[in-house]
Amino acid sequence: MATASDDVRKKLKALGTKVTKEIEAKESPRIEIPVRGLSNVEYDEKSGLLKLGGQVSKRSFLNYAHAKKFMQTMLVANFAYNELLKTGIHTSLRDMFYALKRTLPGSNENTFEEQIESDHCVVDLEVSVDTLREDLHLSADVRGRVVGPVVIKDRGDTIDWAKLGSGGWAIPSNVEEIEFKKVDAKFILVIEKNAAFERLHEDRYWEKNNCIIVTTQGQAARGPRRLIQRLSTEYKLPVYVFTDGDAYGWYIYSVIKYGSMALAHTSDRLGTPDAKFLGLTMKDIEKYKLEKYTIKAKPVDIKRAKDMMKYDWFQTKAWQNELKTMLEKGYKAELEALSSKGLKFITETYLPEKIKNKDFLE
Amino acid sequence: MATASDDVRKKLKALGTKVTKEIEAKESPRIEIPVRGLSNVEYDEKSGLLKLGGQVSKRSFLNYAHAKKFMQTMLVANFAYNELLKTGIHTSLRDMFYALKRTLPGSNENTFEEQIESDHCVVDLEVSVDTLREDLHLSADVRGRVVGPVVIKDRGDTIDWAKLGSGGWAIPSNVEEIEFKKVDAKFILVIEKNAAFERLHEDRYWEKNNCIIVTTQGQAARGPRRLIQRLSTEYKLPVYVFTDGDAYGWYIYSVIKYGSMALAHTSDRLGTPDAKFLGLTMKDIEKYKLEKYTIKAKPVDIKRAKDMMKYDWFQTKAWQNELKTMLEKGYKAELEALSSKGLKFITETYLPEKIKNKDFLE
Repeated sequence: MATASDDVRKKLKALGTKVTKEIEAKESPRIEIPVRGLSNVEYDEKSGLLKLGGQVSKRSFLNYAHAKKFMQTMLVANFAYNELLKTGIHTSLRDMFYALKRTLPGSNENTFEEQIESDHCVVDLEVSVDTLREDLHLSADVRGRVVGPVVIKDRGDTIDWAKLGSGGWAIPSNVEEIEFKKVDAKFILVIEKNAAFERLHEDRYWEKNNCIIVTTQGQAARGPRRLIQRLSTEYKLPVYVFTDGDAYGWYIYSVIKYGSMALAHTSDRLGTPDAKFLGLTMKDIEKYKLEKYTIKAKPVDIKRAKDMMKYDWFQTKAWQNELKTMLEKGYKAELEALSSKGLKFITETYLPEKIKNKDFLE
Repeated sequence: MATASDDVRKKLKALGTKVTKEIEAKESPRIEIPVRGLSNVEYDEKSGLLKLGGQVSKRSFLNYAHAKKFMQTMLVANFAYNELLKTGIHTSLRDMFYALKRTLPGSNENTFEEQIESDHCVVDLEVSVDTLREDLHLSADVRGRVVGPVVIKDRGDTIDWAKLGSGGWAIPSNVEEIEFKKVDAKFILVIEKNAAFERLHEDRYWEKNNCIIVTTQGQAARGPRRLIQRLSTEYKLPVYVFTDGDAYGWYIYSVIKYGSMALAHTSDRLGTPDAKFLGLTMKDIEKYKLEKYTIKAKPVDIKRAKDMMKYDWFQTKAWQNELKTMLEKGYKAELEALSSKGLKFITETYLPEKIKNKDFLE
């Protein structure tokens, strides 16, 4: 069976072959790299994802301004091909930086000075050979835990997410190789905060409601995002994102659903267009009389709300209304405000009511 | 069987009874609270832990300066007793704050304005009735994952830490109720960084070396600290702490071993005096020729090194020498610097050599 690893090895080999041929033909070797950054990010209505547009830049070895970056990109490509993919080893971006940092013989020139340089090369490789850092065997941040009626197979172990006590399964940075053996859930509930996850877990919310609960522990790392997407698409599971009603909560939701602007080339693999916002809304604050438990909006909340009002992917009536109300009221609210109604209010009232009434912000 | 929960209920009830009696006797109700803070922290050589000294302050209801804090402490004690311990529910400090925040009837006075106020009450209760927030059913930060030849029972589930695929067991905030069914490890390796944990896990270091590996993912949360202590004391397992060679790495080690100065009253339950520092040392930098991979020490590193040189619990020749060398050289190094020697250097050379030679910083 051809694996993602075979596929990316083929792509990296093709890159190397192309560059070698150019050198042999005495041409300046070059690579084409789609432009990243806001100017080249588009909202693709059909897929419901943020994607890279068509702008491409060329990086040429015999161009004084490009030469070092060209060399760096080749070093990273070589490292991924020979040190990681060939050996089956995975490592982190920081470890790779240390592994590649050295002084070039007969010079005072270092291959890399700062990690940001090798990090950029990884993203350049991702977009130019159309792959993900996970497929290059490079791991990113790790956070997130999961519980629910799911059995997986991973590295030869069979793991039942329903039998992990008060803990849960610690989601690794790379979830590509995980095999789902049994998925009995009806939906996935994604929770921003670990404390709420523990509360739901203690009440066995996932068992009573036949769902998977995932905590992202803040901004979702790539492992949980890919895991949510795989479960959602492979098993047609709705995804509900339960966050604070503030700039940060909206952002967590937006990245899970549409992908991120900074890494728009990864949306296909990391975005879950079906995700729905179940987080605390301005309407909830009114309905549940939480005004006394709100917090004054900070400049970052106000700026983000204003930015979001302009984004193509937030041009729905409900979201425009939500953001407008937040700007008018000047406050925000955290999940924990619901605890003022009782410690079981979230599990026994808030979530069941909102899910039953399909009271999502869309 | 009497549980920790019965014990703390008894203590809280005694506090309530005492206060009630004082009110009935028309005395001013008061509580005695050991003083926290550096002035009352001592290094206890016998136990090898930081402990609270004998200074005690009194909080009296009929003292204008104490009245509000007294009320707040009683609200928190009542909440822990009636809402948490009686119902068996656990919650977070932030949820408790929201649950207790309200305006007192017939006044403009709120019970609490900021979470820091209720947090302080929790610590006051911890020291005055000699318990831990975990026993009060209040959870703190959650981080950390674990893998190894250990089988536990938790909330009715049997969990084999050796069969969790590429993930691991997500350590919950409260590990008091966990039952160890089988512990086949020879030692515990505590790793500051998740990336190093994943690398070790991929190489099945824990299997080859018959050990438990835990990542704290930065400063250790209370769950992992208590888990490490329980495993270490209940099974006489040595604990090796593998961190960066810098201020932050030393601090992580110090808190795991001695407890923290801010929460010295918890050392008995959270400190592991047998822990040994296996992190990157100044000697390692020389031995493995890592000078080129060091980073210039920051002011925080220099300040911390100078502070540590004065602490009673760092008055060993080896540590004094380490800190002095760091100040002289003016650099620090991260774990990942070892990756410059190859991606398997840590698992195949560094850790086995250092453990075999008992090359710990003590």
